[in-house]
Amino acid sequence: MPPAPDTALAVIEAVTPDVDGGRFAAKRIVGDRVRVEADVFAHGHDEIRAVLQHHKVGDAAWQEQEMHLLVNDRWAADFAVEAAGNYEFTIQAWVDPYRTWARDFRRWAEVQDPGLAVEAEVGARLAAAAARKASPRDATRLRSWAKRLRGPLTRRDLARLDELDRLIAPYADRRRATRLDRSRPIIAERERAGCSAWYELFPRSASPDPDRPGTLADVSARLPYIAELGFDVLYLPPIHPIGTTHRKGPDNTTVAGPDDPGSPWAIGGVEGGHTAVDPGLGTVDDVRLLAKDAASFGIELALDLAFQCSPDHPWVQEHPQWFRARPDGSIRYAENPPKRYEDIYPIDFDTTDRVALWEALFGVVQFWMDQGIRIFRVDNPHTKPFGFWEWLIARAKAVDTDVIFLAEAFTRPKVMHRLAKVGFSQSYTYFTWRNSAWELREYFTELTRGPGRQYFRPNVWPNTPDILHEFLQTGGRPAFAIRLLLAALLGANYGIYGPPFELLEHTPRSPGSEEYLHSEKYEARYWDLESPDSLRALIARVNRIRAEHPALRRDSGLHFHDVDNDSLLVWSKRTPELTDVVLTVANVDPLHTQSGWIRLDLAEIGIAAHQRFVVRDLLTDARYEWTGAVNFVSLDPDSQPAHVFTVTPLGDGAR
Amino acid sequence: MPPAPDTALAVIEAVTPDVDGGRFAAKRIVGDRVRVEADVFAHGHDEIRAVLQHHKVGDAAWQEQEMHLLVNDRWAADFAVEAAGNYEFTIQAWVDPYRTWARDFRRWAEVQDPGLAVEAEVGARLAAAAARKASPRDATRLRSWAKRLRGPLTRRDLARLDELDRLIAPYADRRRATRLDRSRPIIAERERAGCSAWYELFPRSASPDPDRPGTLADVSARLPYIAELGFDVLYLPPIHPIGTTHRKGPDNTTVAGPDDPGSPWAIGGVEGGHTAVDPGLGTVDDVRLLAKDAASFGIELALDLAFQCSPDHPWVQEHPQWFRARPDGSIRYAENPPKRYEDIYPIDFDTTDRVALWEALFGVVQFWMDQGIRIFRVDNPHTKPFGFWEWLIARAKAVDTDVIFLAEAFTRPKVMHRLAKVGFSQSYTYFTWRNSAWELREYFTELTRGPGRQYFRPNVWPNTPDILHEFLQTGGRPAFAIRLLLAALLGANYGIYGPPFELLEHTPRSPGSEEYLHSEKYEARYWDLESPDSLRALIARVNRIRAEHPALRRDSGLHFHDVDNDSLLVWSKRTPELTDVVLTVANVDPLHTQSGWIRLDLAEIGIAAHQRFVVRDLLTDARYEWTGAVNFVSLDPDSQPAHVFTVTPLGDGAR
Repeated sequence: MPPAPDTALAVIEAVTPDVDGGRFAAKRIVGDRVRVEADVFAHGHDEIRAVLQHHKVGDAAWQEQEMHLLVNDRWAADFAVEAAGNYEFTIQAWVDPYRTWARDFRRWAEVQDPGLAVEAEVGARLAAAAARKASPRDATRLRSWAKRLRGPLTRRDLARLDELDRLIAPYADRRRATRLDRSRPIIAERERAGCSAWYELFPRSASPDPDRPGTLADVSARLPYIAELGFDVLYLPPIHPIGTTHRKGPDNTTVAGPDDPGSPWAIGGVEGGHTAVDPGLGTVDDVRLLAKDAASFGIELALDLAFQCSPDHPWVQEHPQWFRARPDGSIRYAENPPKRYEDIYPIDFDTTDRVALWEALFGVVQFWMDQGIRIFRVDNPHTKPFGFWEWLIARAKAVDTDVIFLAEAFTRPKVMHRLAKVGFSQSYTYFTWRNSAWELREYFTELTRGPGRQYFRPNVWPNTPDILHEFLQTGGRPAFAIRLLLAALLGANYGIYGPPFELLEHTPRSPGSEEYLHSEKYEARYWDLESPDSLRALIARVNRIRAEHPALRRDSGLHFHDVDNDSLLVWSKRTPELTDVVLTVANVDPLHTQSGWIRLDLAEIGIAAHQRFVVRDLLTDARYEWTGAVNFVSLDPDSQPAHVFTVTPLGDGAR
Repeated sequence: MPPAPDTALAVIEAVTPDVDGGRFAAKRIVGDRVRVEADVFAHGHDEIRAVLQHHKVGDAAWQEQEMHLLVNDRWAADFAVEAAGNYEFTIQAWVDPYRTWARDFRRWAEVQDPGLAVEAEVGARLAAAAARKASPRDATRLRSWAKRLRGPLTRRDLARLDELDRLIAPYADRRRATRLDRSRPIIAERERAGCSAWYELFPRSASPDPDRPGTLADVSARLPYIAELGFDVLYLPPIHPIGTTHRKGPDNTTVAGPDDPGSPWAIGGVEGGHTAVDPGLGTVDDVRLLAKDAASFGIELALDLAFQCSPDHPWVQEHPQWFRARPDGSIRYAENPPKRYEDIYPIDFDTTDRVALWEALFGVVQFWMDQGIRIFRVDNPHTKPFGFWEWLIARAKAVDTDVIFLAEAFTRPKVMHRLAKVGFSQSYTYFTWRNSAWELREYFTELTRGPGRQYFRPNVWPNTPDILHEFLQTGGRPAFAIRLLLAALLGANYGIYGPPFELLEHTPRSPGSEEYLHSEKYEARYWDLESPDSLRALIARVNRIRAEHPALRRDSGLHFHDVDNDSLLVWSKRTPELTDVVLTVANVDPLHTQSGWIRLDLAEIGIAAHQRFVVRDLLTDARYEWTGAVNFVSLDPDSQPAHVFTVTPLGDGAR
């Protein structure tokens, strides 16, 4: 049978921001204004009103703002998220008899319609009705308007009708207002969730002495260097005891020698599991100390969460039910038939003992949060259930909203997006494999304009311990410089895996492989940071540019400009009000000089048509005077793979 | 506090078809297959299964189909809607231990892994568990497979594992399957909802005798003519008694002479209201007879639903509370300040006596359905509440699913879309105002590719009694021919308002107006159907082409091809399997011959690259042999404004 009729008159559709109809939160940074839009309309020609209602979850009171019509039945309003945490908003809309009357009444009055007194009485009744629910002060004024509308109306009264508009607005009858079926959540996170520069290093390779492996104390000693480079997050691969059973040897060989340290991701040994520290590196106290030292340099320590166990992890004995048993009673290794990875037992997140397991895993997060850690890089989150992450991240955020999780999921796009939806603050991306200009343009357009922009915050890396891309293997020093510039200037969040990056380490384990030769994953390395080849000066300069330019500290505001050479990529980033603009022209060919004519979208860089302007290169301090959209550039990758310009109008055309 | 964890492992996202998350139905035609797609995935690398479940609403049993993976985590299945009515579908997805085991087991077997027997035991247990809930026959076979997996496995057993795959499939453990939070409705309508050719005429102008106005009997006598033209819906403006109070005179003057018949939309007089027939036209019996006569010509009679009243409508006396009262006790006219329309009282759909009012309005529909009417053209639905239409259409469909409502809403796009969502089978469009090639290409791309394609069925009209577009006023006979060809060959549903259309009536009431001079809305006219200028032969030919070509009888399958002349529009329509293809090249300039090179997307017309093919013009029977994508056309609007081609490959390259 037909449903009961829907008698609410206004319609609300196509609400933004919206992630799956309100199932997940859209992400914002503290201080952002959340712009809310919706299609709002009703049948006929009556006037409608719409209000945005919002609050921080937990606050009983809701704030309210009047929405305003943009065009084509699209309405908008915005609100600020002033503290980290969960917010939600909803919308109410209704056909408004007063507004309709006031609009029509002004028109009747204009033509001095003979029925004006009758129409005035309609308004008088609306004013009188509002008076009955108004504050005493407003009620008096509303009644006075009712009286005025009933008396002989003067021109002056008509001119003052705006006063009644304002006076009556709070007392609209909303009993039949249309409401969203579900409020839309917003999560506001601290600034570093939206802008961060990561430096990854293996502590055991941080020794200044080639004859002994590094420790957490050595990492502390390296903080001035990392600060000089300008990074603000220091991320360490797992620092826990490493299993000895089936420990991997150098270059991932299956037999380890007695002195081989094994992979840090084979977590757990006799010394403990995920809440212990490898004694070779130091102690839990050393972690606290390192975090504190780092903070004094403006650097935040990030740890790795790799929820898997070596066969020697204490949980294997204590909680065998947390792993998958085979019929012969053995525990199932990590497998990808026909291969087995015998140094790792995956955890069975779906075990019948799930409640205890999940609590224990949250306990790991809680333990490190207790030591002061607020950033976790999560290893392979895509091999664990989405529901687990949603639960774990919400629990951690309930302890401290400042906690940040970075998803290291290099997998299918929809899986990566789902992880971002369930709560990861940042996500690794395909950037590492996007090297041509058209790929970069397409990918960053998707990242910053596609629906994922509401919840998926890209963190872009030119290299990781798992990925030495062919571009870096073969492109020489210019390749490293280009990839650094692309990562740092396209992404608000980016990172490098050093020192191999700044020291231009580029030899793969074997031809065609993306694995590093002598990978730090399986052995400790010694790095000569003072090498004259080091990219440290460029890195430091680029990070300083990022620090000084708010336009670079956000993912929105990115715009690509056309250029007639496929090896050049041209983009600008801007703040919403154009208070800061950075225009970059990069040569993505590490081997050849590339030149071309670029065609700027001048409005995106705050320049009027035909206006003269100066571009100043923040890398070289060179200045060029340009006029109009079309300009010539030529970039030699050996000397300078990119221009990074500020843009200043000349003459009386202030921006 | 964090929510309870979501322990279902599979994810279902981005389901299509979907109209506002399942709030509204997607529309289909009886016999269509509904293609359902969704993103379905889980964490990790386990195999998943997904099933589509669907049924006709009211049927207790649900049908089920296995979905299959397309690419990039997108899954699909389809089902047929075999009768008119409401259907719904949902999806279940789960991580499937058997499928995962079978995939891995085959890989272990391939390398003759030493642990194969242990892995076989996993499969044996799955088979045994399935046997416990299987039919007796299947249980025996499943137990036999369990035994076989536990014995020494032969190569032959392994080769026959597909048998176990099939056997075990129905017994998967779905207790933790993921389900959609809401099923998605589909409404299947009869064929005419998806393809129809409408002819609108004013009965009072249907007289063969210029000295007396027409009647319903005259309309019956005109059926052979309408059938010859090839139309299958005959739509009459309101046939009810017309009010005398403030009756409009010719050309919408405010004073009517004693013999002026008034506007048929000023409904209601002493003779009755919406269920009465203007005695000058005939009786309710005449309507029944006309509907029956029309049916014998394959033509269906459509009536107008204009829910508004003249001051003389019986409801004004009987139910004054169904109208809006002014404070002085008078009833409010239709108004658009500073104008009043004193021959019309709008109905107050939001009256406190709403229940009785809506029932009475449904009573009107019910009354005409009782007379055999199944198509209603609804006048200005956008001035009545959406909830009213949703309720009314559902009630009418509950009486007979074959009922079709056409929304005559020429208003803002979102309002028009909402009306389609709430249930209108067809909708008037902006076609009448889209005359240039780029406008037509953009608009029909939106109609057939945009999200509205799921629920908004366009019905395109070159003219209506309210709209004589400047293009027809100034373009001469070619303009009428072009607009006919565009309407009939772009839209599966189209209509003309005749005889003014075929007789090339083109004089506006005043310069710049879209109103007809001597509009039939206000006076009876006499038409000489035998005029030598009549477009009747072309119209008949075009409608015959539509009848013979399934590609033209659907809105999907439309594709625009490029051409280097802005006055030419090139499009093809095809059936999904390319069993029928019609390629049209139209000159949209009524004044000049236009020539150009067209560039065909050959795959869309079923031709391979470099294949020779013949195009045969269905209007002239001319044949051209073409090769490749680029071909020249030249069209003189006076002699032939368009080519309407069938496409036949030559040589051994059968389509």
